[in-house]
Amino acid sequence: MRLKGWRADHGLTLHYLTLCELRRKKGKSMSSDAAMSPKITVELLRQLRQAMKSSKYIKEPIQAYIIPSGDAHQSEYIAPCDCRREFICGFNGSAGTAIVTEQHAAMWTDGRYFLQASQQMDNNWTLMKMGLKETPSQEDWLISVLPENSKVGVDPWIIAADQWKAMAKALSGAGHSLVALQENLIDAIWEDRPVRPSTQLSALGLKYTGLSWQDKIVQLRGKMAERKISWFVVTALDEIAWLFNLRGSDIEYNPVFFAYAIIGINSIRLFLDEKRVVDPVVREHLELDSPSKPELEVQCLPYESVYTELRAVCSALGPKEKVWISDKASCALTQAIPKIHRSPIPYTPLCLAKAVKNPTEIQGMRMAHIKDAVALCELFAWLEKEIPKGTVTEISAADKAEEFRSQQKDFVGLSFPTISSVGPNGAIIHYRPLPETNRTLSLNEVYLIDSGAQYMDGTTDVTRTVHFGTPSDYEKECFTYVLKGHIAVSAAVFPNGTKGHLLDSFARAALWDSGLDYLHGTGHGVGCFLNVHEGPCGISYKTFADEPLEAGMILSDEPGYYEDGSFGIRLENVVLVVPTKPKYNYRNRGSLTFEPLTLVPIQQKMINTELLTQKERDWLNHYHRKCRETIGAELERQGRKEALDWLIRETQPIV
Amino acid sequence: MRLKGWRADHGLTLHYLTLCELRRKKGKSMSSDAAMSPKITVELLRQLRQAMKSSKYIKEPIQAYIIPSGDAHQSEYIAPCDCRREFICGFNGSAGTAIVTEQHAAMWTDGRYFLQASQQMDNNWTLMKMGLKETPSQEDWLISVLPENSKVGVDPWIIAADQWKAMAKALSGAGHSLVALQENLIDAIWEDRPVRPSTQLSALGLKYTGLSWQDKIVQLRGKMAERKISWFVVTALDEIAWLFNLRGSDIEYNPVFFAYAIIGINSIRLFLDEKRVVDPVVREHLELDSPSKPELEVQCLPYESVYTELRAVCSALGPKEKVWISDKASCALTQAIPKIHRSPIPYTPLCLAKAVKNPTEIQGMRMAHIKDAVALCELFAWLEKEIPKGTVTEISAADKAEEFRSQQKDFVGLSFPTISSVGPNGAIIHYRPLPETNRTLSLNEVYLIDSGAQYMDGTTDVTRTVHFGTPSDYEKECFTYVLKGHIAVSAAVFPNGTKGHLLDSFARAALWDSGLDYLHGTGHGVGCFLNVHEGPCGISYKTFADEPLEAGMILSDEPGYYEDGSFGIRLENVVLVVPTKPKYNYRNRGSLTFEPLTLVPIQQKMINTELLTQKERDWLNHYHRKCRETIGAELERQGRKEALDWLIRETQPIV
Repeated sequence: MRLKGWRADHGLTLHYLTLCELRRKKGKSMSSDAAMSPKITVELLRQLRQAMKSSKYIKEPIQAYIIPSGDAHQSEYIAPCDCRREFICGFNGSAGTAIVTEQHAAMWTDGRYFLQASQQMDNNWTLMKMGLKETPSQEDWLISVLPENSKVGVDPWIIAADQWKAMAKALSGAGHSLVALQENLIDAIWEDRPVRPSTQLSALGLKYTGLSWQDKIVQLRGKMAERKISWFVVTALDEIAWLFNLRGSDIEYNPVFFAYAIIGINSIRLFLDEKRVVDPVVREHLELDSPSKPELEVQCLPYESVYTELRAVCSALGPKEKVWISDKASCALTQAIPKIHRSPIPYTPLCLAKAVKNPTEIQGMRMAHIKDAVALCELFAWLEKEIPKGTVTEISAADKAEEFRSQQKDFVGLSFPTISSVGPNGAIIHYRPLPETNRTLSLNEVYLIDSGAQYMDGTTDVTRTVHFGTPSDYEKECFTYVLKGHIAVSAAVFPNGTKGHLLDSFARAALWDSGLDYLHGTGHGVGCFLNVHEGPCGISYKTFADEPLEAGMILSDEPGYYEDGSFGIRLENVVLVVPTKPKYNYRNRGSLTFEPLTLVPIQQKMINTELLTQKERDWLNHYHRKCRETIGAELERQGRKEALDWLIRETQPIV
Repeated sequence: MRLKGWRADHGLTLHYLTLCELRRKKGKSMSSDAAMSPKITVELLRQLRQAMKSSKYIKEPIQAYIIPSGDAHQSEYIAPCDCRREFICGFNGSAGTAIVTEQHAAMWTDGRYFLQASQQMDNNWTLMKMGLKETPSQEDWLISVLPENSKVGVDPWIIAADQWKAMAKALSGAGHSLVALQENLIDAIWEDRPVRPSTQLSALGLKYTGLSWQDKIVQLRGKMAERKISWFVVTALDEIAWLFNLRGSDIEYNPVFFAYAIIGINSIRLFLDEKRVVDPVVREHLELDSPSKPELEVQCLPYESVYTELRAVCSALGPKEKVWISDKASCALTQAIPKIHRSPIPYTPLCLAKAVKNPTEIQGMRMAHIKDAVALCELFAWLEKEIPKGTVTEISAADKAEEFRSQQKDFVGLSFPTISSVGPNGAIIHYRPLPETNRTLSLNEVYLIDSGAQYMDGTTDVTRTVHFGTPSDYEKECFTYVLKGHIAVSAAVFPNGTKGHLLDSFARAALWDSGLDYLHGTGHGVGCFLNVHEGPCGISYKTFADEPLEAGMILSDEPGYYEDGSFGIRLENVVLVVPTKPKYNYRNRGSLTFEPLTLVPIQQKMINTELLTQKERDWLNHYHRKCRETIGAELERQGRKEALDWLIRETQPIV
């Protein structure tokens, strides 16, 4: 349920793993032994049901309790302390909602996770397969099982305001009521619940950000003034990190930290664990001890006090004053703002400002992609050498990729768990290697690697599909269609104001012509040393309220094709939206196109060049020339000879 | 305001003219003398403001009165008796809402009509230019001008339920109220208001419809039973005409008649002027005197009694019974259904069933398009001969096209007013020739003709752009881009379940590549001897809730390019969605493509063949071969020698 809007609709949804899955991958296993054996939940459910009747936690007994997936910030990736749904039912996929009544326990998830959920949950749980006709909605199911006049509880901090509204309406229509509980009942019974992370913050200077947080505040206030907005409540973690030019590591892969902010026309309140601002570097960055201007004074307050402070802010509002808050914010915080003052927005001004990268950020993203390409060239050169020995596995290849990346300057960590898949594993779109599925790379199967990293200057996300022996004609044919789709998007020229979803079919046309397709979106926004998935733009067949593409936005372009039981193909570059000047300029609207930031060769062995048009061949040769020039120079500089030889061989022009 | 959903978003919006405009074109001039001189409204506004306070019409005085554009059936084209907004303000465009307060009179319309509205309204009226930043919404404007606690009146029969809801909410939020008035205040002051048409009905046999109305009722009831729906209120005129296999001519260009229907599981109520069912043919068609089965007995009731009957039906409903009604139906009829029984739907089952043509309808549409092509071949052959004489004008060419069409079997009338435009007039997207703009066709300018007809067996809509001398390189270049876009859509292969809006960018890619574009949609659904614009599918860049394309649906494919002050280009075929079998069949989804029904040569003189790919040349040659074979045979049969010669010359293959 968390994967809404651009998040679920764009690009691949396969990166969505919980921290718990990640730790398992890294060998730090969870309390439950094997990944896929069901969690025994009899005792936990008994305790939860007791809590549902206990005056220790609630005023009146409730007949059902809803456990959503998310955290209080609508984060895509969540911290271990927020894996409440996994704790109660065992299922650790990225999307799912559990509901426990006095008699029943049910968990809703989507088609990506039917198998996994059925393996991870014991028979105290009913799996509700979303998307199937016979599966009731949560509302309908509750109404069918609840006794009359029931109370259904939920933690208002982890349910979005719009979901609360829909659920409350459905329940009250059937004589029940939805109740916001002060205490989270899972936390109440979760004995060894991890503490909320509070990692060290790093301050990013102008060298990385191009714009001081003070200037970002001034720009934000300008937008607030334009719309006569008095206050803006910032709830998304990447927006807070971007606004204050700070990074943390509270959530793996996402360089963010738990915080809220309330920005007024003359005041700035930042809510976070106050221990974090003891660090003199952070204090100086935020000018905590000597603000340059009174309206730029940052007041640091405890993370937990955001509700009380927001109530206090609202109680002092004039009758016509308005407060901005994301329409995806938690029910608790949204309802803290009286309705007459509340102005919910689909995309906050920070989300929009963050999406359009400034010249410093663009330069940083370029540098990050050069370093990333160096690491991948090294990886492929190494793989070519090692694979014939029969010792390279999906996991060891992924680890090697991480090792090469970690040698690059300003490397921070991965930007998502590496998808490293061989043969039939490549066809499982949300695959990531586990010890029990781990396959050895060989000269006989297609290898797909989708990986990326966080560097201080930028975030990367790249997919290449290669064959180390001789691909079949069919594999080459499919690869070539995917390549044609990739090029069609990358080389597309389109007017200013065009929304990304209008480009999605370009990526599919060649596949469609042959009766093929892929069942995920084509592209997602990419942050700059921030989340690898970010709004408000993307390229998808699903229709949603995406914002028009603008020069400076950065997206992925990643069509694919998946042959069940056989192989998977995906070809992903990160691309920058740039202005272009075609022959004419209709109504002076101006035109845009994409410039690839990812500069990693596309394996020519996989291409059936007869299927390419001259324009496509020209694109490929031009791309490879750029790879050779830019990455070649960097490989040379770093003295990485073998990778350089590999690069030069892989970037020969085709004729 | 009437042009919502697919209607405004699809294909060209330029066909939308009121009957009043049409009559002017036909020489039957309105009370106001010239088309573009303002209507003097001082006296009318005085009378209306008097009515707004008169106890003769209303219980309590109202402070504002809203006059929407539409009729009670959400019709795109409306009858003269429904042109109330035009009556009060003079503006006769297809979209606009007038609001009169005690002090002010304002009219909202969109960019297509700013010039026309400013010319047709006198200075008692303020033109509210929709889409401009500074233009207030109707709600905001009302709130800014109304005294406290005002009442705003509207006729609930001509405002859609959703519009009522939004307006009522905004007004009540500001302390005012929206009031449904029993009596329409425009009708009250409109002395010579035309009577509502009640034309003769014709019954269509199986030969034309392929499915008896009885079978359609059975199928409809099947769908109602599936969804546990007890009643369905049919409000759209084309749905009623389709369901009962009846046609009328109450609204010009649209073979429909004023009626409502309420369909139950065991009963059928048809509301219409009862004089219409005196005709023995109609009586027999509807089995009025001897129904074959009791559940197929049609109860004919007066048009005006629909409200009372619907209330009676609803008062007898069981607690869980549900009534379907279009969510675009009038506020009056929607609110006649108590909320707990009301089930509003975006697309009714009739709208969906009507869109997928059965084999008989497809065959009829094919025949209609053959006859239509014969008429157009004759027209072009005639134009070639006559234009050098300098006597052919936009109007006379349009009349000639109608004359040729009228010679074809089962011709009923035009399906929309012909757009016949030369040179710069072609660049005005919603152009239709008037005596004061009428231009002579010559050897020096591009000529665009967008026209269509109603035949008993089908509806046509075709646009061709031609040059009778030597087109410039630039004209040819633009034409070729439009042709490439047309072919890209027409030849597209796409999976079952694809929505039309995903194909829109295919039509634009060639134009975009050169920095060009067109500012209208690419395609709209076409009825079968019904409205030339119909839902629920279309091809547009605007995102809306269109339904997936299915084999048997019929749409237009009409990209264009318009060079202001110079020329207009559009290339429109009506195309049928057909299954196709590409090389592979991913997940057994099946694939679709389009088959052109329109078979009129595309002028090769306008094409820069160097810009075409081999695939595009093959498409064009194949299309022209089909035109020659199919239309050639019919021209031969009809003995139309000159047109046949023209056809053969115009369908030479290109190399």
